[in-house]
Amino acid sequence: MTPEPDSAPADSAAQAAKAILARLYAPILPELKQVEEMYRAELSSDDEYIANLLEYIEDYSGKKLRPALLLLAGKACGKVTHDHIILGVVAEMLHTATLVHDDILDEALLRRKRASINALAGNEVSVLLGDHIFSHAFEISLECTTPVGAREFSRAMARTCFGEIMQVHNRNHFELSEAKYFEIIEGKTAELYATSAMLGAHYAGANEKVCRAFYDYGMNLGRAFQIMDDLLDMLGEESLVGKTLGSDVEKGKPTLPLIHHLAHVNEPGRKQALDAAQQGKRKELTELLHQTGSFKYAAARANAFVAAAKKGLDVLPESTAPDGMRELLYEVADFVLSREL
Amino acid sequence: MTPEPDSAPADSAAQAAKAILARLYAPILPELKQVEEMYRAELSSDDEYIANLLEYIEDYSGKKLRPALLLLAGKACGKVTHDHIILGVVAEMLHTATLVHDDILDEALLRRKRASINALAGNEVSVLLGDHIFSHAFEISLECTTPVGAREFSRAMARTCFGEIMQVHNRNHFELSEAKYFEIIEGKTAELYATSAMLGAHYAGANEKVCRAFYDYGMNLGRAFQIMDDLLDMLGEESLVGKTLGSDVEKGKPTLPLIHHLAHVNEPGRKQALDAAQQGKRKELTELLHQTGSFKYAAARANAFVAAAKKGLDVLPESTAPDGMRELLYEVADFVLSREL
Repeated sequence: MTPEPDSAPADSAAQAAKAILARLYAPILPELKQVEEMYRAELSSDDEYIANLLEYIEDYSGKKLRPALLLLAGKACGKVTHDHIILGVVAEMLHTATLVHDDILDEALLRRKRASINALAGNEVSVLLGDHIFSHAFEISLECTTPVGAREFSRAMARTCFGEIMQVHNRNHFELSEAKYFEIIEGKTAELYATSAMLGAHYAGANEKVCRAFYDYGMNLGRAFQIMDDLLDMLGEESLVGKTLGSDVEKGKPTLPLIHHLAHVNEPGRKQALDAAQQGKRKELTELLHQTGSFKYAAARANAFVAAAKKGLDVLPESTAPDGMRELLYEVADFVLSREL
Repeated sequence: MTPEPDSAPADSAAQAAKAILARLYAPILPELKQVEEMYRAELSSDDEYIANLLEYIEDYSGKKLRPALLLLAGKACGKVTHDHIILGVVAEMLHTATLVHDDILDEALLRRKRASINALAGNEVSVLLGDHIFSHAFEISLECTTPVGAREFSRAMARTCFGEIMQVHNRNHFELSEAKYFEIIEGKTAELYATSAMLGAHYAGANEKVCRAFYDYGMNLGRAFQIMDDLLDMLGEESLVGKTLGSDVEKGKPTLPLIHHLAHVNEPGRKQALDAAQQGKRKELTELLHQTGSFKYAAARANAFVAAAKKGLDVLPESTAPDGMRELLYEVADFVLSREL
């Protein structure tokens, strides 16, 4: 699978993705609906202005990958409980809060093809609305029968923030080591997937070894997801994903293809690429990275993480997992690679 | 007591305040030291850049009124436990996180006479650092023997954010009703005091009635504190409090003296005051508000809230409270009124 943008029109590509997700989510459809309903109910306020903001924010919720992972892990390990529903809502709310704050950081004008909340209501309201959603998510997490979910999600969020701070600190530092790159993306992207999958297993009664395997499954999916994001940012088309694209390099975010390229060219090549990056010459930079196979390299890394995610599920006991759940989790992993859809 | 700035030099005023606080904090000195040590230990990271940011942030912690309230309430109701230490750290961390985010909102350049973190590291880092501190505070709160502290502090923070959003939404709306003004300040300022005091009582084994009384005590202190803040903002001197002053009205924040003034003048007077406020003519505005006794009115409201805070402590059983603790809590309430120091 290559990360090149699909040549099909955006709408039919989105339709295809929807069809795949509908199939992958089929075993957890009633539970995901409960998550959606509770999510909507929790984003509310008596104050009319705040209520309108929260209603607007509801649309930030997209494919619901984090709650879906949590529910699928639960289903694969045993029984999906009310704790799963609560924590599915928490996962989605924490993700939403980070999106609200990310838009401030990215100065994004669009989010899911609509005006972002900071474009609409200003940075101050975005900061506070994100803070409210964080706090309320933690409040909800304490409704579970045990505090494990609250503890793990608060730990995960603290790490997520560290990953994002490191990313800001390494702005325009395109020659970052791969190790630091992975430290950043494991924090800012993968930790929330990993914790969601792990908690899904835990609240279905899985033992520690299986929980750890699901944590790793989510972590590998998250790594692959972020690498695909890097690729999409440089190779995707704005109309396909509904947010401002090609902006990572222009905003000085180190991405895996560029890190690979800079590590594989001589000094003049290095200078040429850095100049192109710093001056925002996207087309020239893309051509340079194709020459060193840096996009292919990044895609191969994403593929390898997905393979590792699948392999890690070997510890899942045949006896407890319902028919076909392991294969479904394989397909969920593969779906991450099809994100140009 | 009038809110006019002390004519004594800043340093000796600060020394006097320190001396009062030293006496008020005397019964909880060892516990407050534990809170400070744990607070410092928890604001840490392996990443050098983040570690430096967190070290810088430590200085945001000032009088530690919230942990002190929590510990004093605990001491007044029974025994101070390790839960109190943990929750004292949480209260101070949540407060610190809101300060970090407030500086973005206020575009403040100074905080406690040093460069604010957003002036130093930019808005993006400030957003993320605040988010980290929030998340980590919730993580720590779960180390308590029961989840009550975590639940109450997450609920309190969610309300705090709502109060702040309402304040932003009502910017330049100087003719706000007093009811809405109080809804805002009860959220943005008083809720965290109220919850701190209440949890101090709860974890010392106080019954529901006493817990409620401590919640109200903190709420009344918070209301008084914010009104004093309004007064200081218009009447204080920058050198005395180490942050940019006179900025509330210029930034369009409705304050109690101005709300009172606008409700007590005729149409030309209203226009004159609004023009002065909108054009940032602080001296003219101050004189107008003196004429309607609006500063005196606000100071009287602050006094009344402090009186109510003290009266509410009547429910505290004589038998359990150690000698002099009730009187000490009276003095803590009075201290809020001496904030020009």
